[in-house]
Amino acid sequence: MGKGATLAIEIKQDAREPVFLALSRAIIAEIERGRLKPGDPLPGTRALSKNLTLNRNTVDAAYHELTMQGWLVAEPSRGTFVAGDLPDFGRESALTEPADADGQNVRTHRQKLNISDGLPDARIAPTVPLGRAFRKALTSPPFLKSAYGDPRGCLILRKALSQYLKDERGLTLGADDMLIARGSQMALYLAASAIAEPGSAIAVETPGYPLAWAAFRAAGARVVGVPVDGGGISLKSLERIAEREDRLRAVYVTPHHQYPTAVTLGAGRRLRLLDLARRHRLTIIEDDYDHEYRFAGHPVLPLAARADRSAPVIYVGSLSKILAPGIRVGYAMAPPEVLRRMSDRREAVDRQGDVFLELALSELIADGTLRRHVRKARRVYLARRNHLAALLAKHLSHVSEFVLPAGGLAIWLRLNPGLSAEAWAVNAADLGLSLLPGVHFSLGPARAPEAFRLGFASLDESELAKAVRLIAKSVPGA
Amino acid sequence: MGKGATLAIEIKQDAREPVFLALSRAIIAEIERGRLKPGDPLPGTRALSKNLTLNRNTVDAAYHELTMQGWLVAEPSRGTFVAGDLPDFGRESALTEPADADGQNVRTHRQKLNISDGLPDARIAPTVPLGRAFRKALTSPPFLKSAYGDPRGCLILRKALSQYLKDERGLTLGADDMLIARGSQMALYLAASAIAEPGSAIAVETPGYPLAWAAFRAAGARVVGVPVDGGGISLKSLERIAEREDRLRAVYVTPHHQYPTAVTLGAGRRLRLLDLARRHRLTIIEDDYDHEYRFAGHPVLPLAARADRSAPVIYVGSLSKILAPGIRVGYAMAPPEVLRRMSDRREAVDRQGDVFLELALSELIADGTLRRHVRKARRVYLARRNHLAALLAKHLSHVSEFVLPAGGLAIWLRLNPGLSAEAWAVNAADLGLSLLPGVHFSLGPARAPEAFRLGFASLDESELAKAVRLIAKSVPGA
Repeated sequence: MGKGATLAIEIKQDAREPVFLALSRAIIAEIERGRLKPGDPLPGTRALSKNLTLNRNTVDAAYHELTMQGWLVAEPSRGTFVAGDLPDFGRESALTEPADADGQNVRTHRQKLNISDGLPDARIAPTVPLGRAFRKALTSPPFLKSAYGDPRGCLILRKALSQYLKDERGLTLGADDMLIARGSQMALYLAASAIAEPGSAIAVETPGYPLAWAAFRAAGARVVGVPVDGGGISLKSLERIAEREDRLRAVYVTPHHQYPTAVTLGAGRRLRLLDLARRHRLTIIEDDYDHEYRFAGHPVLPLAARADRSAPVIYVGSLSKILAPGIRVGYAMAPPEVLRRMSDRREAVDRQGDVFLELALSELIADGTLRRHVRKARRVYLARRNHLAALLAKHLSHVSEFVLPAGGLAIWLRLNPGLSAEAWAVNAADLGLSLLPGVHFSLGPARAPEAFRLGFASLDESELAKAVRLIAKSVPGA
Repeated sequence: MGKGATLAIEIKQDAREPVFLALSRAIIAEIERGRLKPGDPLPGTRALSKNLTLNRNTVDAAYHELTMQGWLVAEPSRGTFVAGDLPDFGRESALTEPADADGQNVRTHRQKLNISDGLPDARIAPTVPLGRAFRKALTSPPFLKSAYGDPRGCLILRKALSQYLKDERGLTLGADDMLIARGSQMALYLAASAIAEPGSAIAVETPGYPLAWAAFRAAGARVVGVPVDGGGISLKSLERIAEREDRLRAVYVTPHHQYPTAVTLGAGRRLRLLDLARRHRLTIIEDDYDHEYRFAGHPVLPLAARADRSAPVIYVGSLSKILAPGIRVGYAMAPPEVLRRMSDRREAVDRQGDVFLELALSELIADGTLRRHVRKARRVYLARRNHLAALLAKHLSHVSEFVLPAGGLAIWLRLNPGLSAEAWAVNAADLGLSLLPGVHFSLGPARAPEAFRLGFASLDESELAKAVRLIAKSVPGA
């Protein structure tokens, strides 16, 4: 790409759509292909219109459209540029070279590469059916009815989702046992609010999920760490804590794919956990945040599918992990009295959800879009997991090791003795790569594991290759 | 409309759209016109296809589409019916006749008429531009970037909204002083969490807004009632409470249109309130929930527009009152340290908002749709206010009185001495009309006002006429 003088572009014209939209799509394609990079200048509208023999208004309209959509930025008296904060589309991206030194150029806004903690890739989300479902929801009777809704969420979504969970996860609870929350984050806060009084305690895994601890603390509870080993949460430690802490109310676990280590809790420990909860009258808060993503064998049935009244389980899940981080819908299933308290608290802090969003999602479940997308995403993410595993084995086996996870969207990479994950992450940040070291997942005095959680789902294969290259370049002391 | 044997319908066919969609739209029009009523049976697909000389699959597809959208319900082996839970479209509606006695028929699901506490009418919401903005947002870079967002909300929306508030309300704070929350409900909860420790107190108006009290209690605060008179909150009472309560941290007020009485706090009391807050080191939580709806003169500038550091104000507003109750977006503006604590709490209980929704709303603000809609809504609601006021004067002046409110979306109807608002509301409920009596807005031992809050914005003129007819029929002892 030259310095904005010209732009060799092929417009695929379709008689049913305005020319400016065809031009917009062609420019987006150039950006996605990496031929136009973040910060690149675009040709002036006069030059481009001449070049493509288009009306200048058409080019103006396309630039305006793309600016509104955030693909381009217009800088007064300087011209139009590709936006600096675009996600990395992976091909020929600015990422391979270090940032400009002058710090003045818009190029310096270029995207950093983030290794997430296990986010899905919004670029493969079913945005077209979703957009259609939104449009329908906005003209549907439940939306047009001007009234407040149920703080537990629309009945139609609770019905569709509880049926989905019955089919896919063996959960026999129904729509009345379910609350739709903003995301699993809110579901965790509501769960803790329903079972903890100020000063009571909730046992949590460490390393574990810091935002769950924040949710529990916001509900007034203390959190007490329970170590995790290669088999998941240590039940011996939990037993000791339950004996010592007489205000322990609940234990928070991620049994399907432990966060952050990705270990699956085995059948033996599951039974012992249920038994322990029964004996100590603990509620189990089961966070099954990425149930769908199981690559080896079948998903393991949730604890909630085999719990009974003597060991109550609050089961928490999320649709955000299926669709995109920017669509926040989670849910909880709980015994009636707990659910009632969660619903009251939800009304007090948030009243109710977005009706149009809940309606649209129930439609995507009912018409099969969600199931189809899960199948597609599982295929894509399996390939990404395998790709990352192969890269790690090839480029980093001399300094680290990992167990290939049977499911989930992240690999837990343990560093060889003597290597500091924090120092390594600092080096990587200098190269423009953001990494999550073990200290990020550690509670209180427990020693932080020297490890990284590497979310692979939101990066495509070339982005993963770049990431591993940058990780390998950042080995501390190398 | 006969018993489902036939359906005289006119299909406006447009070559660019499938026939089943044209048929769907025609059926929706019949429902909206009131010729098809909730619970009415539709003709069988075979009969209708013959009648309209359409392919039966086309009729099947239209019925399926409308069932998915919630307009129709399919009852196995009985046929297809107009959904029973549709909003009242006002014309020839089932509402004018009492419900069937047998309770078995789907007709018994017919919509009740709800007088809201002051909700906007989603039927006039700009759903087309909104749908378009959603579609754009779902393919825009900030949405496709798979990463967590800012718990204060997308910067682009904070920028657009703070500019809007500067232009419309004289608030000079910027995007960094703002937090986008799910609705004003969450903003109120976060505000209280940021300023109250367990056991500290917040003074609130009574009669007042019960869900604000629930939000403050969820944050661990006690609420203390301050009486409201014909001029708004009583500052004498507030002064006494501030002197007595050494753990009083804040006072919650609705100065623009007091909730529920609709009174505007005058200039004198505003100055005295700011002074009182300064002397007693109270934070003012100002809930300006329906600022836009001012019918007489100009809106009064918020307290937040004239506050200084010595009397901090947390300013809370909502876009839900502008658009629709089923779109939940509110916001708060606050001093930096308070905003930081609110942001931390927001992350703990809800992490962040829906990125696509925040992007879409920023677009509607930027392209002028929101402003245009506000102007249109103000015109429509002014007509409805006047219509309700005329009806009340004509049919209910022998048993009640009211002051025409200068703004807001509700009239506060005070009953003549000796009449019980609760008994009246019970009678009205028997006729299918839901009313909000004064007790609903009363805190603790304060005597409940014998009054109704009558939200007029969500009902059209014929619905308002029906409502007043039913209210007049329900006079207790009449």
